[in-house]
Formats: sequence, C-alpha cells, structure tokens
Amino acid sequence: MADHHFRPVASGLAAVQGLKATGLACGIKTTGKLDLALVVTDRPATVAATFTTNRVQAAPVQLSRRHLRGGRLAAIVLNSGNANACTGARGFQDAEATAAEVAEALGCPLRQVFVASTGVIGRPLPMANIRAGIREAATQLSRRGARLAAQAILTTDSRPKEAGVSFDLAGRRVTVAGFCKGAGMIAPRMATMLAVIATDATLSSRLLHRAIKTAVAESFNRITVDGDTSTNDTVLCFATAAANAPAIAAGTGAFRTFQAALTHTCRSLARMIALDGEGATKLAAVRLCGARSAAEAARAARTVAESPLVKTTLYGEDMNWGRIMAALGRSGAGFDPETVDIAVDGLPVVRRGLSLGPAAEARANRRLRQREFALEIDLGAGRGEAEIWTTDLTEEYVRINAGYRT
Amino acid sequence: MADHHFRPVASGLAAVQGLKATGLACGIKTTGKLDLALVVTDRPATVAATFTTNRVQAAPVQLSRRHLRGGRLAAIVLNSGNANACTGARGFQDAEATAAEVAEALGCPLRQVFVASTGVIGRPLPMANIRAGIREAATQLSRRGARLAAQAILTTDSRPKEAGVSFDLAGRRVTVAGFCKGAGMIAPRMATMLAVIATDATLSSRLLHRAIKTAVAESFNRITVDGDTSTNDTVLCFATAAANAPAIAAGTGAFRTFQAALTHTCRSLARMIALDGEGATKLAAVRLCGARSAAEAARAARTVAESPLVKTTLYGEDMNWGRIMAALGRSGAGFDPETVDIAVDGLPVVRRGLSLGPAAEARANRRLRQREFALEIDLGAGRGEAEIWTTDLTEEYVRINAGYRT
Repeated sequence: MADHHFRPVASGLAAVQGLKATGLACGIKTTGKLDLALVVTDRPATVAATFTTNRVQAAPVQLSRRHLRGGRLAAIVLNSGNANACTGARGFQDAEATAAEVAEALGCPLRQVFVASTGVIGRPLPMANIRAGIREAATQLSRRGARLAAQAILTTDSRPKEAGVSFDLAGRRVTVAGFCKGAGMIAPRMATMLAVIATDATLSSRLLHRAIKTAVAESFNRITVDGDTSTNDTVLCFATAAANAPAIAAGTGAFRTFQAALTHTCRSLARMIALDGEGATKLAAVRLCGARSAAEAARAARTVAESPLVKTTLYGEDMNWGRIMAALGRSGAGFDPETVDIAVDGLPVVRRGLSLGPAAEARANRRLRQREFALEIDLGAGRGEAEIWTTDLTEEYVRINAGYRT
Repeated sequence: MADHHFRPVASGLAAVQGLKATGLACGIKTTGKLDLALVVTDRPATVAATFTTNRVQAAPVQLSRRHLRGGRLAAIVLNSGNANACTGARGFQDAEATAAEVAEALGCPLRQVFVASTGVIGRPLPMANIRAGIREAATQLSRRGARLAAQAILTTDSRPKEAGVSFDLAGRRVTVAGFCKGAGMIAPRMATMLAVIATDATLSSRLLHRAIKTAVAESFNRITVDGDTSTNDTVLCFATAAANAPAIAAGTGAFRTFQAALTHTCRSLARMIALDGEGATKLAAVRLCGARSAAEAARAARTVAESPLVKTTLYGEDMNWGRIMAALGRSGAGFDPETVDIAVDGLPVVRRGLSLGPAAEARANRRLRQREFALEIDLGAGRGEAEIWTTDLTEEYVRINAGYRT
C-alpha cells in the first residue's frame, strides 16, 4: 500500500463517475425493508465477474454467467429476500424476465443486464412485486442512490458495507469503489455473498477479469465464517471509463496501481463481511508457512480456520494449541509434528512441536482478548504459504442459524 | 440382526470371561475423579486395533502400534486427564515406562502391554502418580472392576458407555462386550475417543483385525460431532478364548455371526458417543444414495453431516433443505441439482431439486423434533451409498468448547 497514494472514499460506489443507482422496498421482504437495488451505467461499461464454485447455482448466477460472455454491462438489478435458487426452469425464466423488465425500462440490450439475488432458497420470486419495483426504481436513479442500493441487498447483515479508494492516473482522478453483503456464508435460508465493485478507469473486460480474479483470491476467497459456500455468491466488477483517464494496459505501472486499488477495496469489503460474521466477536488471520507446497499450505490453513474446536478456542480466549496441532494433523498436509512452530501476533507458544510453557501461553491468551489478531503457524516442511481469515464460533452464531424466531 | 440370536449383556466388559479389571484415582485429575484403568487377561489374548489417522499421533498410540506387531495382549493401561500428546521424546519414554510398570507388576512381557491416554495435550504425564496408581491397581483387579475401568477413562463424557451381546457358538455361550469414551472428537484440551472391546471367543489376531476393521468402519468412523479427529483415537479389541468355544475360522457362519455381534457392539457404543456429543440434543443419520461412487457418496454425506449450517438447522427443528443442497453442491460429488430428492424419515421434502411445498416441510419439521431421525438424500446420479451419523450444533457445544471455567 505504501507505494500507492490512495485516498479512501467515504461514499462507496457513489464516488465512481458514470453511474447512477437506487434501492427501494418492493415487498419481497415482509418486513418492509429495502429489497430491490438497481445500478445503471451512463454508457455500456466493460465487465468482469466471479461466481460461486458450488455445483448448485442459482438462476441469476446462470443468467449473469451467460450475459458475461457479451462483455458489456448497462445495469445490475439485485434483490434480497429471495435467492431464486433451487427453483428449476421457472427460476431461470423469472431471472430472465427480471432482466427483460430492466432492459425495457432503460432501453438497453437484455444481454447487458446482470441479475443477482439473495435470500430464501427454493421459493419462486414474487414477480409482480419485482416488475413494479424495477419500473419505480428506473425513475429514481441518482448518483447518491448507490447508498440505498447498498442497503437494499442486505439480509442478516447488521450494517451496509461500502469501501473504495481514489488515486491519480495521468493527471486524472480515478476511483475504485463498491459495496457488498454477507454475514456467514449462508444465513437462515438465506444464501450469499454479493459484491458490486465499479471503477471509472478505462480497462478492457479481459484485463478487468484478470484484476478481479487476483483481487478476489486475496480477499473474498480468504474468508471463512462457516466453511459453507452459497449457491448465489457473485462478485461483479465493471469499468465505466467516465474518469476520461488513458486506457490501462497490461504489464504497466498503471495496471499495478489499479490492481492494488482493486485488491485493497476487496480486502476492505471482505474484512467487513468477516467482522459482521454471524455472531462473530473476533477476526483471526491464520498465516501458515513452511508447507511443502502452496496447495498444502492452503489446505492446512483452511482446516485450522474451519475447525469448530479452534474457532471456539478463539472465542474462549484460551490458547488451546493442541486443537491447532490436531487440525493440522488431519488436514492432509505433509509435515513432522516435531518441526511445528505456533505463535500469536509474533508471541511464540509452540516451538518444534512442544509447548513453551504456561507463561508463554498466558502471554498469547492476552492477545486473544483483542478483536483482531494473527495465528502464525510454521510447519517447517517447505516454502508453501497461505493466509485465511476466520472468526470465532459463538453461542450467537448458533442462535442466529438455528433460526430462532425472536 | 434378525438372523442372529443376540442377548444384550447388562454388565459390559465384565461379562467377558478371561479378564479382570479395575479403575481408580491416582491424582492425574485434580478433581479426585477416577483417572487410571487397568484391564488384564488371565492368559495372553489375541489382539487387533485401529488408531487415529491424524498425522499428529500421541506417544501411547505410537507405543501401542509397536506392541501390536507382537499380536498378543496381557494388559491395557489407560489414563484420563492427560493425553500424553505433543510431548516429544519424553512423552514416548513416559508411555514406555508406564507399560514397563504394568509388566513388572503383573509379571508379563512389556510387549504385551498396551497403553492409551486421553486428556490435556502438551503436558508431561505425572509419572509418580501413574506408577503408584499402577501398583495399587494391580492389587485390586476383579471381574466386576471393569465397570470402574469404564469410569476411569471418561473426560467430558456425561456417563460411562458400555455395551455387549452374548450368543451361542457350538453349544458354548460367547460374549462380545466393551466400553468407550468420547463426547465430541476433542473436548477442551482433551483428546480422544477410546474403546476397549473384548470377546471370550477364540480367533487369530489376523481374523480379529479384519473383524474390528469392518466393525469400526460401520460404527466409530460413521460418527462426526465436529469433524475433528484426535491425536489419540484408539480402538483396542482382544480375544481371550476363555469361553472354550471352537476357534472361529474365516468364511464360516460362525465368523459372520461374530462379525455381526462385534459390529452391533461397536454401533451401540458409537451411538452412545454421538448422543453424548458435546451439547448435542439430536442424533441424525445422514443416509445418502444415488452418488456416482461409494467414495463420492461418503464425501457428500460427510459434507452435509459436518456443515455447521445443517447442524444448526437440526437444532432449530426447521427443515432448511437449501443448506443441504448447498452442502451437497460444494462436496465435490458429481450430480445434477435437478435429480436430487430429500426426505426426513421417509417423508419427502424435495423432489427433483424442487420443494414439495410448505405442507411437506411442516411434516418434516415435526420429525426433526424427535431425538433421532434420518436425513435421506438421493443424488440420482448412480449407485454409490453412504451413511454418516451427526448431531445438532447447539449453544451448549460452544459453551463447553470455549472452555468456560464455570
């Protein structure tokens, strides 16, 4: 970050030139909360996206994947309260009808309309509400409306999540910013992590795809709240070119700066999701090194990060490193237990597989009382590294996900 | 079961002829509860065992593995309160010294003594207590003492776990019985599922190994409380031949009957562990069929069984089948979402990937209110089948594992 002169933007997506947005309540949620968002570009934007790797993919994911092949984006319509997942042929027709309604309202090609949904699985979309909502939304678009859009996609989130940075590119001010939702990979009958990230820089869809892939790998794909990936996960990224800066080309310093800004924005958003994780009170970065390969490092770090026993240990603020050893041992990564070092925020607890004693553990326990810290693990078997962010597992997580109707 | 005339035994291991046992408190646990168990055979028994597949293996596991090569068992010494895991070279010396103390007290070969430990990880064994405990235990052995042994291996278990059956073999009464401990794969800083199963039938170590492998695959390896496998998991099985029944040979009806009795006993013990799972209030059998292979079936069933979202749904008694679909979708098993059927205890909820409606879900929800039920999943992609038992995830699980010092 130190090399780049990034200025954080306070307003999220609204800081990006060349787009308008809004959010409103169209009655999908019975609570009357905002549940429909529309984001529209002044001119067709280049677009890139990443989607859930789950074999079960919601209808809007299937439709947006198809439209992505066109490489251009005029609008995104998002709804909360209903995931339109596990809804069969009817679900796909509904997703297409939603896009068609937007295309008609805005006078843009159907293929340039992207759809994302989050909420209840297995129920048909209330299409009358959605159609009416889209028609109304199309009359309310504004630059500032992006904040309403960020609100309209929330489900169990406790707050809207927006982030972004600006920087100078050949004398022009360029912005990368976005919003997202997600708190736990899937909330009660709710699916999804959704993110919309925009820039007013000028990039080809192809280059944008490369950049968002890298950024997602270092942000959203690093968080694990409960190890579950949803049927609806979608990250949409588009470039409006409205800053009138020179086109960014591959292999240039400008691209590296843009990549850093995009990764920074995605990491900020991903941290917000993790910290808003259902019932979470702590965010831990599991930093693992010394694995035989990067793949084994990722597997070992993920096994530690997803272990319910490790996650309850973080909540209990007690450095129960035996659980970390046990998780490492079943991860499938190759190592000798007698070469493992474990530390918390640089304070060593285990060296060469053995405890450094109660005093060392007590020092580490004090770090666990903080809201954020790092679990540092060195397997001593090679040069593979990985980092995964996790949260603690709390009674509140169980209460939320057991679906108590309080 | 219907083909075999098994009579349940009320007294557990004590019903098996040819052994004596005891349990006592030697001060490993600061609470003064029983923490040392000794099981001794009248004459050297044939022996078989299965151990944890975790790469991190406790010292007693390493020693018992070595002694297993001899194929004969004269005694098992078990302790709770300290797992003797992650204790390095000293840990192994301590395990060996423990076995040597038993060998000396009983006058049997060192190699015929097996050791198992459960409890805190990463702390040296209090050897003075253990030595004194062994010497005392050797003077207190009795047939009925097996019940004390079953108590002395408990950690967070809420009750002792014993099971067994008797049946007739060529006019002789033969018994298979055992005890185990475990409640959650690893309790707070505690490791382990331990089981000791004995028979007074006559079998070679080799045949006994085949039988216990089959039985464990259909019982202990089917339960998942939190997906964690411990560093100490051990199932020891031995045959005293004291019933004076004819030797059981491979491929005979007698072997099939013995196998059924052993599997039945292990399943009874495994169910007790699952139902005593930390904080668990429900036991669900995840029965999956229609996978492309048995391996994919096992992977899909296990992913469903270990999903925190599925487990909280069971606790919430709300048939949130979208979570089951999402877990199946990320399991790596191949299937088309539109061929998936889901039912609870035979009551269909999802057919061909689509909900059968609120009435069907309400019917299923009523089954979830029971203490035990089956989640039946048909992927519709092949003939692979698997069954995994799981429990619900509750606030109590979090409380226990966060190590609240109440």
